[in-house]
Amino acid sequence: MEFDTVIHNGTLVTMDARMRIIPSGWIGIRNGCIGAIESVAPPAGVPQSVDAAGGIVMPGLVNTHTHLPMTLFRGLADDLPLAEWLNDHIFPAEARFIRPDTVRWGTLLACAEMLLSGTTCCCGGYFLENEVARAVSETGMRAVLAQGVIDFPAPGVPDPKKNIDHAEAYAKHWLSESPRIIPSIFCHAPYTCSDATLKAAKAAADEMGLLFQVHVAETRQERERSIKEKGLSPVAHLDSLGLLDRRTLMAHCVWVDDRDIAIAGDRGCAVVHCPESNMKLASGIAPVPAMRAARIPVGLGTDGCASNNDLDLFGEMATAAKLHKAASGDPTVLGALDVLKMGTIDGARAIGLYDSIGSLEIGKQADVVVLDTRTPHLTPMYHPESHIVYAAGGRDVRHVFVSGQPLVQDRRLLTMDIRKIMDRVNNIAQEIRKPWI
Amino acid sequence: MEFDTVIHNGTLVTMDARMRIIPSGWIGIRNGCIGAIESVAPPAGVPQSVDAAGGIVMPGLVNTHTHLPMTLFRGLADDLPLAEWLNDHIFPAEARFIRPDTVRWGTLLACAEMLLSGTTCCCGGYFLENEVARAVSETGMRAVLAQGVIDFPAPGVPDPKKNIDHAEAYAKHWLSESPRIIPSIFCHAPYTCSDATLKAAKAAADEMGLLFQVHVAETRQERERSIKEKGLSPVAHLDSLGLLDRRTLMAHCVWVDDRDIAIAGDRGCAVVHCPESNMKLASGIAPVPAMRAARIPVGLGTDGCASNNDLDLFGEMATAAKLHKAASGDPTVLGALDVLKMGTIDGARAIGLYDSIGSLEIGKQADVVVLDTRTPHLTPMYHPESHIVYAAGGRDVRHVFVSGQPLVQDRRLLTMDIRKIMDRVNNIAQEIRKPWI
Repeated sequence: MEFDTVIHNGTLVTMDARMRIIPSGWIGIRNGCIGAIESVAPPAGVPQSVDAAGGIVMPGLVNTHTHLPMTLFRGLADDLPLAEWLNDHIFPAEARFIRPDTVRWGTLLACAEMLLSGTTCCCGGYFLENEVARAVSETGMRAVLAQGVIDFPAPGVPDPKKNIDHAEAYAKHWLSESPRIIPSIFCHAPYTCSDATLKAAKAAADEMGLLFQVHVAETRQERERSIKEKGLSPVAHLDSLGLLDRRTLMAHCVWVDDRDIAIAGDRGCAVVHCPESNMKLASGIAPVPAMRAARIPVGLGTDGCASNNDLDLFGEMATAAKLHKAASGDPTVLGALDVLKMGTIDGARAIGLYDSIGSLEIGKQADVVVLDTRTPHLTPMYHPESHIVYAAGGRDVRHVFVSGQPLVQDRRLLTMDIRKIMDRVNNIAQEIRKPWI
Repeated sequence: MEFDTVIHNGTLVTMDARMRIIPSGWIGIRNGCIGAIESVAPPAGVPQSVDAAGGIVMPGLVNTHTHLPMTLFRGLADDLPLAEWLNDHIFPAEARFIRPDTVRWGTLLACAEMLLSGTTCCCGGYFLENEVARAVSETGMRAVLAQGVIDFPAPGVPDPKKNIDHAEAYAKHWLSESPRIIPSIFCHAPYTCSDATLKAAKAAADEMGLLFQVHVAETRQERERSIKEKGLSPVAHLDSLGLLDRRTLMAHCVWVDDRDIAIAGDRGCAVVHCPESNMKLASGIAPVPAMRAARIPVGLGTDGCASNNDLDLFGEMATAAKLHKAASGDPTVLGALDVLKMGTIDGARAIGLYDSIGSLEIGKQADVVVLDTRTPHLTPMYHPESHIVYAAGGRDVRHVFVSGQPLVQDRRLLTMDIRKIMDRVNNIAQEIRKPWI
């Protein structure tokens, strides 16, 4: 077989079904897909030959929950009670400054940050999602991007009665627009969307075979209010509406009990765990080990930059691995490989892309990251998966490929003018700063 | 006043008593000390002029608890029950591979990692500490370094009856050997040192005016055993021996109750919080907000690399800030500035160096770090202290000075041959790998 690209001289952390780790191996890429994974000498004469220099070659990370344009509000307001943070800072900032141009530059900044830190695919939603999708498609990154649906006036959708129509039109447009952009529909939450809205949004997503996303059971208050008003937990309420199935992704699920977990497991829906956002907003600690034990696909998400405050999935993996050990008192809970699965193949499964990404396997898309391990904090290396989770950071990423296309080379972005993007975002931040600071 | 060095064009995060943040300021350094902190135009004609390029200029971080040579065991064994991890991996590896040469190279690797990630001063202890101190002194870094004392045969101290003599001789030698190396004595723990050993070690430290360090109440088992065997909690036990005063530093203090906190507060002793190590080993969550409320100086520590697995204090700050919000359910707990205090001025206070380091103030040693903020994940910047704690990482450090001496310039180490150090550690790791993996 002839290849377009060969990546050689690295330790391959495949994340395949056998969790193979191949020291000193190579992968061959052809037409954007992985065509070979080998440990013998790499072929000569390949047009593009990438030397991993003894580093780690791994599947690109999958960030399964974020709101890309919120990079604009990174660190705008921290350490506040949730209601004050939302009502006095985030909601007013969104109402005032979320426009097509700001969404575009905030999204490009997010893509730059994600690619430079080894995330090759993200999943999330926001408003003005047409602008988001257009910006992401220009970068070459892969993404599942949803138009947000909420029963209030929102940026781009002043009349909430038209929220479903708007989401449908968005999704239809992007169904065939770009091979790397997969549209989706995102209902904000069961407490901001009526039952009718939730059902209509899910029906629209189903009709196009798309992922339906929703924030669920993020806070204790949300759970208590749902039980008080509807007699059901948030998960049970969504289930009573018939919304939970293999194409539903529930973000957060912090306040779920055994019954909720059993329901989610039975229905085959997926969950996103956002440990850093949940910790910073003091929402709580999601019962991830129990959800995984119930065979729920659990991905990892950074959430938006207003509540994290970065998009580095390496940090999210490190936090997840440690948080659940502390919460359970058991140091064997969520080992390095478990967490790395959440950041790669389980995340891919959660967003419906299990067949095409999330592992280094022949036939899958060549979404590949090369880590530089010749640094003090990654020396020595006994177990590569341990380093990925417990010691590496986004800044250790050296090369990034999506569908075989190099997007980051020697830490430089190839498809974006990062100076221009940062300048534009800094200009927008000057506007935002005035009323706030 | 004439300066040797001026650092200009940065946002100064001073961590002084008023927590001043000075946009677009400069600091002047003379004879290793800070001589000016200003917001007007910097003086011309200074021999060394450093352009912070719009980044953050801040005091060097203070890592108040680590075991430097344990970089050798980074990621050797993870995700195991504590007893298995210690007895089957760490203790045998130490017994077999801790020698003067391995301690030297492991320490140099630790110094490289700390300096590159903005830590200018560390505090900790190990065995063969003469080798540790010699290696650290070569790098130009500042450190409080303790010879370890334990009532078992240890590397370099085969006869535990001589453990105090050995520690005393070490401390005496280093009292006047190097201006940046401050000796100390470290009793491993109240369960591995007899009352007589603890008292003799503290007396020896007191006689020389040195810091006395001890691991205290790290695990629930330790607390329960102490109460069962001695009728006292670990803290109350140490207090009953008269060991707690302003020159005592207790590492961990995870399992302390209100009475222990009141004792520590009354005695004026300090505590080190090691959130990542405590989480990874599932030891628990130390009641840091309560300890701070009792006016106990609480510093931050990474602990050794066998249980973290890195020495990046930026990560430790991010984890501390988020962990206690999740644990308390209150998002206002341990705000960004509180945690930054723990990583700088409170850490300096905890190890007895409050008068000389921990903040940018006239007369203090010029231990200074410059962060590069022209990166996607630090854009935009509304509040520099938020970025330091919630978004920055060690890899954002661009320049590092200790006592005005540049040790890191444009991310390169000036006093160490990092390739040689990594090669040597990789060779040692080959030895270690054989029986283990």
